Amino acid sequence: MNEHTPSPGSVRRVACIGAGVIGGGWVAHFLARGYRVTAWDPAPEFEAKLRRLVDAAWPALTELGLAEGASRDNLVIASTLAEAVADAEFVQESAPEDLALKRDLLARIDAATPPGVVISSSTSGYGMTEMQVDCPTPQRLVVGHPFNPPYLIPLVEVVGGERTEPWAVRWASEFFEVAGKSVITMDREVPGFIANRLQEAIWREALHMVANGEATVEQIDASITEGPGLRWPLLGPCLTFHLAGGDGGMAHMLDHFGPSLKSPWTRLEAPELTTELRDAMVQGCERAADGRSIAELVADRDRAVIAVMRAVDEVRKGAK
Amino acid sequence: MNEHTPSPGSVRRVACIGAGVIGGGWVAHFLARGYRVTAWDPAPEFEAKLRRLVDAAWPALTELGLAEGASRDNLVIASTLAEAVADAEFVQESAPEDLALKRDLLARIDAATPPGVVISSSTSGYGMTEMQVDCPTPQRLVVGHPFNPPYLIPLVEVVGGERTEPWAVRWASEFFEVAGKSVITMDREVPGFIANRLQEAIWREALHMVANGEATVEQIDASITEGPGLRWPLLGPCLTFHLAGGDGGMAHMLDHFGPSLKSPWTRLEAPELTTELRDAMVQGCERAADGRSIAELVADRDRAVIAVMRAVDEVRKGAK
Repeated sequence: MNEHTPSPGSVRRVACIGAGVIGGGWVAHFLARGYRVTAWDPAPEFEAKLRRLVDAAWPALTELGLAEGASRDNLVIASTLAEAVADAEFVQESAPEDLALKRDLLARIDAATPPGVVISSSTSGYGMTEMQVDCPTPQRLVVGHPFNPPYLIPLVEVVGGERTEPWAVRWASEFFEVAGKSVITMDREVPGFIANRLQEAIWREALHMVANGEATVEQIDASITEGPGLRWPLLGPCLTFHLAGGDGGMAHMLDHFGPSLKSPWTRLEAPELTTELRDAMVQGCERAADGRSIAELVADRDRAVIAVMRAVDEVRKGAK
Repeated sequence: MNEHTPSPGSVRRVACIGAGVIGGGWVAHFLARGYRVTAWDPAPEFEAKLRRLVDAAWPALTELGLAEGASRDNLVIASTLAEAVADAEFVQESAPEDLALKRDLLARIDAATPPGVVISSSTSGYGMTEMQVDCPTPQRLVVGHPFNPPYLIPLVEVVGGERTEPWAVRWASEFFEVAGKSVITMDREVPGFIANRLQEAIWREALHMVANGEATVEQIDASITEGPGLRWPLLGPCLTFHLAGGDGGMAHMLDHFGPSLKSPWTRLEAPELTTELRDAMVQGCERAADGRSIAELVADRDRAVIAVMRAVDEVRKGAK
């Protein structure tokens, strides 16, 4: 952090390095939030593809509500990496998942970006510690992991590496919030962060089921879209099970169904359900419920499931 | 199947054995679909609790649209199991998850239910093979596994046991469809069926993360509700990753990200990504996409995510 570090709320100029599905999604998001966005990608023909992606996203972003001054005209195509980051107040890197490539690219971005400006990587799996090794000023590099499409899904997971200074993590979290994202700030590096560990668990189990002929792709998808998937936009997996416990909530759930953790219900080995873990889950649910009774949570869930089913129905009816 | 077996579409009288959260949810569902429902539970005070549950669900069911003739007055409280099933045309059992109890209860239900009438168990984990051992006429017993709350979540997983005859599985699947559910008919018994294997994988990974201090309950829930949870009501995990592959779809996804299956992204060991598995996933996605291009799927997904976010926002605003 130095005199060049803007306050997160004053940032106007963002650079996006890498303009594929994720990088292009970031470009669309930042444009819709009213930023001037400078984009660069090593692919020679990237501009046409990027503009198509932004054009395809724009109706949805307009429907959601553009920020004041937001315009696709605020997209600047840079012809070099150095040009893209020259006057950036924030940089988002979205290169392919390849550690050697990310190491080299982040070092080059770091060397060319004005000092004090935070640089964030979209990596979905690497830790910043292993990516920042060749950076001249690694203290300002963070992971800012988005979800596809970055112009719609709010979640960004923010975490630093061993050589990242705490101010950079705080700054990035604050900036992403200002820029309209929902931020989870992690205090340690975990491979895959949080959401990917969870969705990868589903994904691997699904692959096992297909590999063993236990379910088809269509059955797997329907088992989510017609079932638990309808609850997850409102209540995450923990609060969902908090409600499955009836009036006793998570405590009853764990005390009653704890033993079935040992059943072969997935290929994932269950953790030991220690008293500490039990209590952490129960207390976490109580905090998350924030004073709402099980009955209130059930009423909210029911209203959300109906609203979600209707919303999805409308889309299905209108689908080609 | 005999002369007492009604056609699935002609059923008017349903018996629900067990009237807790799941059994009571079935009662509410069948009442809303216009059936006469006879309920029995061994708990002496079950009637008051069951009526409270039905009353709590009724506004949501009314909002969704009741079937012609649907009324809470069509609920009949039975004082014995035999009375409850005496003239039933379909029986749904929803007792606690306890194998000995289910074995005994299903044998008693089987003995008291008119011949040729299908009996379904709500079990979330046992196979019918292990539950039907003491039944005099096991050929008509199936699993019909619902999701909480059964009066809203459409999914029912139907599967028979070794001694179940195929007609009973077909009959139950057809009946549940007529009764307004989304049915997945499985051709073999898998512990936990399909959806529970998938959601248990998420749940176990979540427990591991909390146990290791890697994430809090709130972070885990937010990582789903603000992230992948917004995609799952429209697109299941397979089609979601089909879109993550860009224009190349699932084939590109597997060929590009296949190696990261070996990364420690969950505690769940990955299956070998054989050519057979790869092709099964790709072909499954092509079938599921049903001629829709990636661009069309992306457009549908975006509209659904927006609609789902808005729906959930409204509920959050109205929440206590």
